[in-house]
Amino acid sequence: MNDGLTRDAYLGGRLTLWQPARGYRAGIDPVLLAAACPAGPGESVLELGCGVGTAALCLAVRVEGLRIVGLERQPDIAEIARRNAIDCDLPLEVITCDLQAAPPHVRQRSFDHVIANPPYFRRDESHASGHAQREAAMGEETPLSAWLSVASRRLAPRGWLTLIHRAERLSDILGGLAGLGSVEVQPLAPREGREARLVIVRARKGGRAPLRLHAPLVLHKGSHHVTDGDDYTPAVSAVLRQAIALPGFGAAPYKADTKPFKGLM
Amino acid sequence: MNDGLTRDAYLGGRLTLWQPARGYRAGIDPVLLAAACPAGPGESVLELGCGVGTAALCLAVRVEGLRIVGLERQPDIAEIARRNAIDCDLPLEVITCDLQAAPPHVRQRSFDHVIANPPYFRRDESHASGHAQREAAMGEETPLSAWLSVASRRLAPRGWLTLIHRAERLSDILGGLAGLGSVEVQPLAPREGREARLVIVRARKGGRAPLRLHAPLVLHKGSHHVTDGDDYTPAVSAVLRQAIALPGFGAAPYKADTKPFKGLM
Repeated sequence: MNDGLTRDAYLGGRLTLWQPARGYRAGIDPVLLAAACPAGPGESVLELGCGVGTAALCLAVRVEGLRIVGLERQPDIAEIARRNAIDCDLPLEVITCDLQAAPPHVRQRSFDHVIANPPYFRRDESHASGHAQREAAMGEETPLSAWLSVASRRLAPRGWLTLIHRAERLSDILGGLAGLGSVEVQPLAPREGREARLVIVRARKGGRAPLRLHAPLVLHKGSHHVTDGDDYTPAVSAVLRQAIALPGFGAAPYKADTKPFKGLM
Repeated sequence: MNDGLTRDAYLGGRLTLWQPARGYRAGIDPVLLAAACPAGPGESVLELGCGVGTAALCLAVRVEGLRIVGLERQPDIAEIARRNAIDCDLPLEVITCDLQAAPPHVRQRSFDHVIANPPYFRRDESHASGHAQREAAMGEETPLSAWLSVASRRLAPRGWLTLIHRAERLSDILGGLAGLGSVEVQPLAPREGREARLVIVRARKGGRAPLRLHAPLVLHKGSHHVTDGDDYTPAVSAVLRQAIALPGFGAAPYKADTKPFKGLM
């Protein structure tokens, strides 16, 4: 079963994950997603489109006692996620299904948190990749609105959605948050002064606090890439290497509406 | 007629405007709005809710030969705007009307640009101000969606809407841009590292470029207010004192979809 797989270290070696050597491979996005989820010990988490489990397992490393369910449509990828959970001895249950066709025992549950890293590239804009796994992970076979709608339905009252996606889809994201409020937008800028390429959006079921647009979190140091090594800013490096929660999301104190984000500050 | 009016200097003295001594008084928002409008010489501009004409006249100072129409519901404020245009010898035609009930000669026209600085405070959230002018300017008697809908209808094909508003209304703004695209969001942060309080949003009729979320424009220097004088950052000070176009809106080059913003870079 190791054919075509690599085993890669995340979170400064706290997590080691199998993933396909070719096709879609996890970058830093699922790691940042996990770091932005305000889950507290013992809470329940649903990941839509969990892939090989990178975000879910990064979250399980940082927060103790979570009960995490991941939905993954591609059977071979779901199988790798199960193996990763077992090899890491972390609490992730992986269900092979389309996120819009979860089995009844998932549809009858609600979760304290839903996290998602939906595919980034629209099918009509990207070249055919010639690789089915990559195509399924990167294309938008399931519309973003469906991801948001399923997330909202599966959230418990006062539960949080945490999503990472391209900044250019911000309008579609905000427009799809039916029933969710207390929205917080955390722009991720590649470098200081640059426009945001990615956003992390957090929203709360039944939340009523006004939308907050946070200062960007800058990913890389300097104005351009200068070294062969990574050049992450110290704040981002700490997220990626030391498994800390994401900084940003609140230079100012949280509103009374918002319960404290355990471990997030 | 000077009873209860003050005459205040804007743009480093390039513009002197009458406004009521009490009630709603223009801050820096209309000046920033004018600085963000990508109008070129000779183009037509419609301002919704022009007040005493601050944004329209700031724009007329920066860009030559504009034909500007301002709609203002309050007759006494509209009259002050007319007087300001005459005293400054700048091309602003002021029409006293609700923005949803413009006369036929306006409704039959289309404009290269629409600018707006809609009222900020929702009536249900703010204390009664005890001052009718201030109440009308600050409350949201006309819903934001109506401002956006009127703006979209009055724009010529490929025309630009430029809007300044509270960051917390970002979702409502983006959701109300029917028929507009090539959206650009310019956050305005009070200080470095703080969340944005205001946003300038620009969108183009029929535009198809992806949404862009720019790096924040920081208004004030330092981490907190330390002097009695103003502490604007040099970039913002140049906008407010020297009538230059707003920086930001494009650390990266504009897409081919976007015609160059004359005088904006």
